[in-house]
Amino acid sequence: MTLRHPPQAVLIDLAGVLHTGDMALPGAVAALARLRRSGLPLRFLTNTTRSPSASVVARLQRMGFDLRPGEVQTAVLATRKLVAMRGLKPHYLVHPDIADEIGPSSRQPDCVVLGDAGAYFSYEALNVVFRLLMQGLPLLAMARNRYFMEEDGLSLDMGAYVAGLEYSSGRPAEIVGKPARAFFETALAELGIAAADAVLIGDDLADDIGGAQSAGIPGILVRTGKFRPEDEQHATLRPQRVVDDFTAAVAAVLD
Amino acid sequence: MTLRHPPQAVLIDLAGVLHTGDMALPGAVAALARLRRSGLPLRFLTNTTRSPSASVVARLQRMGFDLRPGEVQTAVLATRKLVAMRGLKPHYLVHPDIADEIGPSSRQPDCVVLGDAGAYFSYEALNVVFRLLMQGLPLLAMARNRYFMEEDGLSLDMGAYVAGLEYSSGRPAEIVGKPARAFFETALAELGIAAADAVLIGDDLADDIGGAQSAGIPGILVRTGKFRPEDEQHATLRPQRVVDDFTAAVAAVLD
Repeated sequence: MTLRHPPQAVLIDLAGVLHTGDMALPGAVAALARLRRSGLPLRFLTNTTRSPSASVVARLQRMGFDLRPGEVQTAVLATRKLVAMRGLKPHYLVHPDIADEIGPSSRQPDCVVLGDAGAYFSYEALNVVFRLLMQGLPLLAMARNRYFMEEDGLSLDMGAYVAGLEYSSGRPAEIVGKPARAFFETALAELGIAAADAVLIGDDLADDIGGAQSAGIPGILVRTGKFRPEDEQHATLRPQRVVDDFTAAVAAVLD
Repeated sequence: MTLRHPPQAVLIDLAGVLHTGDMALPGAVAALARLRRSGLPLRFLTNTTRSPSASVVARLQRMGFDLRPGEVQTAVLATRKLVAMRGLKPHYLVHPDIADEIGPSSRQPDCVVLGDAGAYFSYEALNVVFRLLMQGLPLLAMARNRYFMEEDGLSLDMGAYVAGLEYSSGRPAEIVGKPARAFFETALAELGIAAADAVLIGDDLADDIGGAQSAGIPGILVRTGKFRPEDEQHATLRPQRVVDDFTAAVAAVLD
């Protein structure tokens, strides 16, 4: 797989690439403005599921990023679509902030949907989910990221809870957001662009780069956010490029 | 591996074999009394780490079981010994009820020790542990049981949290209680009995039977507690006997 130069569209991860918490990463606002001037179509793909999609967009706009709601594809919205398409009646264990966006739990659930409930991942809530899984209900997880970068350091992401529930129930989860192929393919379909003609920029070796590559999309890994030096020595996952930050990634795409 | 008849000692799991919560299982008090009359040395092995060892013993005695503190080997006490033997300075994430038995966390920890904190497994507490693991500290877990039987059904056990932390940190945990070979070997050493001359009675196919067998001890699985019908069809784990309950297990040992 090789990086097309220039590509016909750019897929961009948010947290760890453009910002950490409420802070834009150095140079990222200007680099996105430069990418905008190229006229390339953009899609922003995020597995963040502690906030509703509208808040994700508003937060980035407040930091100075030029992006529009229609360009942002979140694991929350992808889950909402999947649930509707399959006619599912989920029991939700998600962050209360996305309750309005995702809807209420069914009283007669036929599946469990897990988001990043963060501080709301209580033992009691997990045990309710565990018992539903032991009754045979399938588990859908919005994401299974291992960790993410916060202002004060790496923090545990929802993947820990997905892995834990899989271990105790013996049932594998279906992942809706990255690294699921379908999540990347939705973005490509909306853009009307072939996988090999796109490029993804992300800070998560497994879920951004590995996921994009599994869908046939070349990937540029940035050394910001959750990036760790050992990511460059991974046995099987090799990004098409590894660059210092989003500014360098935009340069790699355009120059 | 075959069941010696009669064996020279009997190792017995507690929860799910003798009792569920505060309820003795039907016939179990009388069956233990019968086993006592045989004069065989007994050891009670438990991975329950939500209560101090003294409470575990007192609770069983209140239900009418004839057992003495010196006969009960808990994952909590085994961990305390291991920490002392290795001179470790742990950060503890454990249930507050065992804080007195296990001691305080070190301010300069060199490892993390996980017990079944139950309702105290908060996101915040797990994230503190996660960050210590990412700094390179090793993880010791008192147990990694998948689930256990409560009065109102199967419940999530601490194994879910161990598996989740392993997944996110990329670091495997060392298990102190069952199914660790060393845990069974400690019991054999105290009894001065060879593995093949003992027998274990338990309700957990992986952690009781599988663990005992890995130490060379034949195992009898009871169809009580967390037992599930699919345990009898397991691809690789085969108990020496599967019987309905503790009464039948005692009969299999003595008759």
